[in-house]
Amino acid sequence: MNEAYQRLTERFRRVATIGECAAMLNWDSAAVMPAGGAAARADQLALLAGLEHQTLTASEVAADLTGAVVADEWDQANLRLMEHAWRRARAVPEDLVVALAKAASTCEKVWRTAREAADFSIVQPNLVEVVNLTRQTADALSAALGLTPYDALMDGYQPGIGADDVAPIFAAYETFLATALPEAEARQDRRAAPVRPAGPFPLAAQEILCRSVAERLGLDFERARLDQSAHPFSGGTPTDVRITTRYDENDYASAMMAVIHETGHALYEQGLPARYARLPVGQAAGMAMHESQSLIFEMQAARSDAFLGYLGQAYHEMFGGDPAAWRRHNLGRLLRRVERSFIRVEADEMTYPAHVILRFRLERAMIDGQLRVEDLPGAWNDGLTALLGITPPDDARGCLQDIHWYDGAFGYFPSYTLGAMAAAQLMAAARDQLDDLDAALEQGDLAPLLGWLRQNVHAVGSRLSFNEILREATGRPLDPTAFQEHLRVRYLG
Amino acid sequence: MNEAYQRLTERFRRVATIGECAAMLNWDSAAVMPAGGAAARADQLALLAGLEHQTLTASEVAADLTGAVVADEWDQANLRLMEHAWRRARAVPEDLVVALAKAASTCEKVWRTAREAADFSIVQPNLVEVVNLTRQTADALSAALGLTPYDALMDGYQPGIGADDVAPIFAAYETFLATALPEAEARQDRRAAPVRPAGPFPLAAQEILCRSVAERLGLDFERARLDQSAHPFSGGTPTDVRITTRYDENDYASAMMAVIHETGHALYEQGLPARYARLPVGQAAGMAMHESQSLIFEMQAARSDAFLGYLGQAYHEMFGGDPAAWRRHNLGRLLRRVERSFIRVEADEMTYPAHVILRFRLERAMIDGQLRVEDLPGAWNDGLTALLGITPPDDARGCLQDIHWYDGAFGYFPSYTLGAMAAAQLMAAARDQLDDLDAALEQGDLAPLLGWLRQNVHAVGSRLSFNEILREATGRPLDPTAFQEHLRVRYLG
Repeated sequence: MNEAYQRLTERFRRVATIGECAAMLNWDSAAVMPAGGAAARADQLALLAGLEHQTLTASEVAADLTGAVVADEWDQANLRLMEHAWRRARAVPEDLVVALAKAASTCEKVWRTAREAADFSIVQPNLVEVVNLTRQTADALSAALGLTPYDALMDGYQPGIGADDVAPIFAAYETFLATALPEAEARQDRRAAPVRPAGPFPLAAQEILCRSVAERLGLDFERARLDQSAHPFSGGTPTDVRITTRYDENDYASAMMAVIHETGHALYEQGLPARYARLPVGQAAGMAMHESQSLIFEMQAARSDAFLGYLGQAYHEMFGGDPAAWRRHNLGRLLRRVERSFIRVEADEMTYPAHVILRFRLERAMIDGQLRVEDLPGAWNDGLTALLGITPPDDARGCLQDIHWYDGAFGYFPSYTLGAMAAAQLMAAARDQLDDLDAALEQGDLAPLLGWLRQNVHAVGSRLSFNEILREATGRPLDPTAFQEHLRVRYLG
Repeated sequence: MNEAYQRLTERFRRVATIGECAAMLNWDSAAVMPAGGAAARADQLALLAGLEHQTLTASEVAADLTGAVVADEWDQANLRLMEHAWRRARAVPEDLVVALAKAASTCEKVWRTAREAADFSIVQPNLVEVVNLTRQTADALSAALGLTPYDALMDGYQPGIGADDVAPIFAAYETFLATALPEAEARQDRRAAPVRPAGPFPLAAQEILCRSVAERLGLDFERARLDQSAHPFSGGTPTDVRITTRYDENDYASAMMAVIHETGHALYEQGLPARYARLPVGQAAGMAMHESQSLIFEMQAARSDAFLGYLGQAYHEMFGGDPAAWRRHNLGRLLRRVERSFIRVEADEMTYPAHVILRFRLERAMIDGQLRVEDLPGAWNDGLTALLGITPPDDARGCLQDIHWYDGAFGYFPSYTLGAMAAAQLMAAARDQLDDLDAALEQGDLAPLLGWLRQNVHAVGSRLSFNEILREATGRPLDPTAFQEHLRVRYLG
C-alpha cells in the first residue's frame, strides 16, 4: 500500500462521510422534519451532493489511481471500485447532472398532482424532459464505461448485471408464470377461505411487537432506530441504521412485514466489514444484493410455515382473539395469497416479477429510443394485460403508480426481482448447509440464518460481485430456477 | 451590489448551509441518535466544520472583501460581518483549531468521569491542555481583531461586548445582591409556605401541555419540533427549529419552564429576516441577545403574576388536584423562590448572576494567566463563598459542574447574565410601549409581546449590534438597573 493509495482511501472515506451526512438528513426529511424545513433541506442535500461529486472528481484522483499500489485482494477490489466510481462521476458533465436533478425534482412534484388526478398528460412534458436528460446521461456513461446506455444506468444500481443477463431470465419467468399462476389460483380457490383476525390492532401494541420481532431477527438497537414514515425504508449508516414503517390500526400484518423487510436491509448494513467502513469495498454489493437480504427475511424466512408458527403465537399473545386466526396455516393462507393486481408494491411474490418485467421492458425501450413517452400509458396497459391478463382502469393504477421514473431512476426496477431470485437461491443453500434452519425458525430464532448470511454475504462487502457472491455461497451464479422451485413448493405443492 | 459582493453572498450562504447540516446532525445526536452512531457522527461533524472553515478562508475571499461594493445599510452591515467572520476564521492556524478541538473532545469525556467521582484532579491535566490551547487561540484572535485575548473569545459569542463593559456591571450587581438577597430571603421566610401540587404528573400529559403552551407563545410547529434530550436546548434552522426538554413525572414545572425558555430562542430564530437568511446580517445578534429572548419568555413573561394565572388554570385542567396549589400567588411562590445554591442551572434569577460573575472572573483570570488551573477548585470555592456565603462541599458541586470550560468554551458565561439584564430592559420597554401587555398575559396571550419583539429585535437580525438594538428598542444601551428594578419589584416589593 503506497501513498497514492493511502490518499485515495482518505478521499473515499471523505466521500462516504459526506454521503453519511446526506443519508441522515434524508432520514430526517422522511421521518421527522416539519413541512417548513423542506426548502432548506433541498439546499442542504444539493450542497452535499455537489461536495461529494467534487471530492470524487478532483484533479489529483487520476494520478493517484494510476500510481496506486495495493497488496491483497481486498485492496485490489477496493481500487477497482474506486476507479469505477471515479469513471462514473467524471463521465457526466456537471451542468447535465444539475439539469437532470432539477428536472427530476420538478417532475416528481408534478407527478404527485398527476397521480392524484389519474391523468398522465399532466406530467407527460416533465417526463419527456427527464427521459431526454437521462438518455444524455446514459450516453455519457455508456461512452466512459463501454456499456450500452441502458446497462450504464443499471450499473449505477447493480454493477455487473446488464439487460442481456436479465432479459432471458425475465422471459423464462414469464413462461413459468403463464402456467404457474392459474395453477396457484386454482389451488387457492379449492381451499376454504382463511379466518381474518379481528381488529383493531392498536398502534402502540403493533410498534412494540414490530420492535421485538426486529430484535429477534438480530437487529441491534444500539446501532439502529425504528420510526414511522409515509413509505417504509432503510437508511442511515452501518453504525446507525434507520428503518421505518407505517402502521394501520386495521392491518396487523403490513407494518410488521415492512419492518421485517427493512430489518433485512439493516442487518446487511450492520454486517458489512467494519475494517473497510467508508471504502467502496466495504459497501453492500449492489441494490439487487441488498434486496435479496430484505426479501430473504420478509419472503423466505418470515413467511415460512416454521416462522409463521412463532409469529402467530406472538400475535395472539399481543392481540388475543380467535386462536384459529393466528394458527400458522391460517396465517400462511392470509400472507401467502396470490392475486393479479395493478399495484406493484401490494403484489404477492409470484406476480411481483410481472410488474418488474413490465417496467424493465418499458424503461429499456424508452432509454433506447424505441418507446416515446407519449406512448407509455398504452404500452403499459398492453404490457400488463399480456403479463397478468388484467388492464389498469386508469393511469393512477397504471404508469403513474411508481415514483421511480418521475424522480429520474431508470435501471433500478430489475433489482427487485433479481433480489427475490437471489434470496430464494441463498435460502435454498442455507437450508442445505445448515442442519436445523427450520427448527430454529419455528422458535423465531433467526440466528443460524443471520450467521450464515453474515459470513457468506454481509462480511464480503463488495470484495466480490453479485454473481461471485452467489457462486461462493451457493455453488453457482444467479440461477432463477431456485426462485421458481420456491414458488412451486409454496404455491403449487 | 457588484459581482465581488455577489460572490461573497453566495459563499456565505454556502457556509451557512454547511452549518445547517451540522445543526441538524447535532440535534440528531442529542435527541434521537442511538449510542452506536456516536463515532461516525463525530467524523461527520468534524468534516462539516472543516468544510465551513475552508469555505470561509478560501484565497479568493480577501480580494472579494476589498472589491465588494454595497448599497444600503443591510448590505453594509452584512459586508462588515463577513469581514469580521473571515478575520476570525483565518486568524487561527488550522493545526491549532484541530489540536484544540481534539483536546476539548478528550477533556469533555474525562470531565464526565471526574464529575461522577467529584475529583477535579482526574481532569486537571486535560483542562491544563485545553486552557493552554485556548490561550494560544485567544492570542491569535487578539492580534487579528485588536482586542484583548479574553475579549477576543467573548467576541465569538457576543460581538461588541468586552470584559471592561461587563466587569463594572457585575461589580454593581454584587453590591446590589449583598443587600437584596438577605432582604428577599427574609421576606420569603415571613410568608406561609406554598402548597405543593400533588403528583405524579404523567409524562404524556406534560408533553401535551408543553406543546400547547409553546404554540400559545407563538411557536409555529410547521417550522419546529419539540423532542426530548438529556439537556434542553434549541437548535436546527430558522425554518426548522428543534427544541428539546426533559420530563420528570414528579415535577410539573421544570419541563414546562425549559420549553418556554427554548421557545423564546426558537421564536427569535423564526423571526429573523428571511430576506437575509443564511447571511451574517440575517443571523441572531449574538448569544446574549439570544438569551434575552429565551429569558424574556421564561423569566419575565411566564413567571409574571398575570401569566401564572393562565398557566395555573391550564395545569389544573390537565392535572386536577387541590385548586389552591394552582392559584397564581401560590405558583408564584413556588416558581419565584430565591435560594443560595451550588448549581448554576438550578439557580433562581436573583442568585443566578452570582454564578456567572464567579465564572467570568475565573475564566478571565485563567485566560490572562493570572489563575493557574491547579488553583481553580480553591478559587472557585472562595469565590462562591464571597458571593453567596456558601461553600461547595465537593468539586462536583463546585468547579466540575458545568461542561463549558472542559469542552473549550471560554467567554460564553457572561452572555447568560447580559441576556437576563437585556430581557428585563426589553420587558420594561414593551410594558411602557404596549397598552395592555399584562391583560394579554392574563389570557395566556403572548402575541402583543411577540409582535413587539419581532419588530424591535427579531426582524433586525444583526443589522445592529447588541447595544444598538437595545438603544433603538428601549432608548438606551444595556442598562443593568432595569434588571435590579425587576428583581426589587418581584422579590422585595
